[in-house]
Amino acid sequence: MITVNVELGDRAYPIHIGSDLIGQTALFAPHIAGKSVTIVTNTVVEPLYGEKLRAALAPLGKDVHTVVLPDGEAFKNWETLNQIFDALLTSRADRKTTLIALGGGVTGDMTGFAAACYMRGVPFIQVPTTLLSQVDSSVGGKTGINHPFGKNMIGAFYQPQAVIADIAALRTLPARELAAGVAEVIKTGAIADAEFFNWIEANVERLNRCEPEALAHAVKRSCEIKASVVAADEREGGLRAILNFGHTFGHAIEAGLGYGEWLHGEAVGCGMVMAADLSVRMGMLDEASRERLVRVVKAAHLPDVGPALGADRYVELMQVDKKAEGGAIKFILLKRFGETHIGLAPDEAVQATLAATVKS
Amino acid sequence: MITVNVELGDRAYPIHIGSDLIGQTALFAPHIAGKSVTIVTNTVVEPLYGEKLRAALAPLGKDVHTVVLPDGEAFKNWETLNQIFDALLTSRADRKTTLIALGGGVTGDMTGFAAACYMRGVPFIQVPTTLLSQVDSSVGGKTGINHPFGKNMIGAFYQPQAVIADIAALRTLPARELAAGVAEVIKTGAIADAEFFNWIEANVERLNRCEPEALAHAVKRSCEIKASVVAADEREGGLRAILNFGHTFGHAIEAGLGYGEWLHGEAVGCGMVMAADLSVRMGMLDEASRERLVRVVKAAHLPDVGPALGADRYVELMQVDKKAEGGAIKFILLKRFGETHIGLAPDEAVQATLAATVKS
Repeated sequence: MITVNVELGDRAYPIHIGSDLIGQTALFAPHIAGKSVTIVTNTVVEPLYGEKLRAALAPLGKDVHTVVLPDGEAFKNWETLNQIFDALLTSRADRKTTLIALGGGVTGDMTGFAAACYMRGVPFIQVPTTLLSQVDSSVGGKTGINHPFGKNMIGAFYQPQAVIADIAALRTLPARELAAGVAEVIKTGAIADAEFFNWIEANVERLNRCEPEALAHAVKRSCEIKASVVAADEREGGLRAILNFGHTFGHAIEAGLGYGEWLHGEAVGCGMVMAADLSVRMGMLDEASRERLVRVVKAAHLPDVGPALGADRYVELMQVDKKAEGGAIKFILLKRFGETHIGLAPDEAVQATLAATVKS
Repeated sequence: MITVNVELGDRAYPIHIGSDLIGQTALFAPHIAGKSVTIVTNTVVEPLYGEKLRAALAPLGKDVHTVVLPDGEAFKNWETLNQIFDALLTSRADRKTTLIALGGGVTGDMTGFAAACYMRGVPFIQVPTTLLSQVDSSVGGKTGINHPFGKNMIGAFYQPQAVIADIAALRTLPARELAAGVAEVIKTGAIADAEFFNWIEANVERLNRCEPEALAHAVKRSCEIKASVVAADEREGGLRAILNFGHTFGHAIEAGLGYGEWLHGEAVGCGMVMAADLSVRMGMLDEASRERLVRVVKAAHLPDVGPALGADRYVELMQVDKKAEGGAIKFILLKRFGETHIGLAPDEAVQATLAATVKS
């Protein structure tokens, strides 16, 4: 087991990464202070890991409840969130009740937001069971739900007590979801660490085959990079925005198609290709680097051509993105692997990128 | 104008108290950094003070939007909160948009919670127009909405940029709502400052008559006391719980009757009488002090007898209160004016109090 510590002062927490961690009582024990625990999971993950987690918690003698939500981004909304609140209130959860998010990014984001809001804040633990959530949404404290007008529009910054990333859980992950997780691994290398990007290029097939050692390294390095960025900028004042590379275009794809049509990681994979194209057009990135990025995105079986939403719709959707200010879209651009630039882009360049990278 | 500063480090903010403050541009100017402002108000307050506030903001050259919500505790729920989110997204509010809560406690709590959650946090200003919200809900950063199973169950601790408490706005307040505000003034004196309690006893008629000088003093002293308690315990770990004197019984009354039947302050007024009765039964408070408290509650035209919900229902409702832990009800008891005790109470004492203070 490897442990990455996220340094956030009195909100610091550990990320434990390794195989078969869900069943280890000792990993949960230090983080559960109250008398009760509510596990929040979904219809897909509950039959796979629900019993294993409850067996790990049993020796602690807590009152354990489980809420099983419907699966998918389409359910990341108020109605589903309210199912968590209903369950907490029905089981008389109090201010010391610990929530455990068992599942992917949607489960983690909703459980974290429920923990942030229930009685104005209760503790929670993340047990991410997808590659995407292990490398991405379990680090950084971003929680929330979608609104029909925009993704993650309603939420909170709220840190977990601990993250327990069980690599063994990835064996049951569908190939498409594994690829969506690799997208965030590629992103992390591209924006922050050229050497790690090289490693990804050389090992993408091992990740595709779900090799535990390769996955553990990818998760560890991604968490380390993200943790250092978040520690420097917890509330996304500046630096942290680089983590949104590929997300401006990606969010437009997700919102434009309707949440759930493409996986978040698929939209980010394609979004990175689009952002790299824009970076080349603005004279920031060389063509060879763009081609390398496209190659690794394709090798991870991620889409590299955007859906035909129409250029105007893309721009409109990017303008309501949380990173936009006064209607001006802030793009995360690439200068070279490991170095980014955040700024506006001329309309002509954006239009040219959309013409070149979107399905006609 | 008097200013009380709430000392919370980088979340510190001023409370300005005085007459005719809503129209003063200079009070708003330092707290609005972005290009747009969304005023959140309700159908009662908008026709009274909406134009005055917009006129004060006009010289700042901001893009100003207004959301008018239905009035009353019965609307302090997700559906109404979502009207704020819809309006923010429709008007393309960004992360620097400032929300202004113009109204009473319900408007302030919902606007503050919307500000805490919209894009994971935008700035907001409180302009409380009721006595209750001026003395109570505008200090302390408690925001939130009700759930059918309990009051303020979903929310956040989130501090405003500033509070602008216009005493002149209280002239349009119905007598019943003024009395509800006096309840919180009485509470503040009772728990924290015997001298202020004496002043309230001597001046309660002046408050009932809405005399500006008496009101300004009551608001100032209440805010000072609450600000010092909150500064010592922002997230309600300990000391802050004393502010809930009268609220354990009070919340049970509100939830049992259905929110909106009694005003919050009316329930707190009666709840204080019940908590004082329990304090006497537990040998903590002398009978003469209890009688003084009952007398001042009555003098403020507040109810001193609880509605007939049935003793079991009272206990059940108090067990789901946020202050309860593992089903044990934590009562805020009075030892003498200015000194409280927080603890459990024997069932027999609680039953005897309910028998003595509730309508049969």
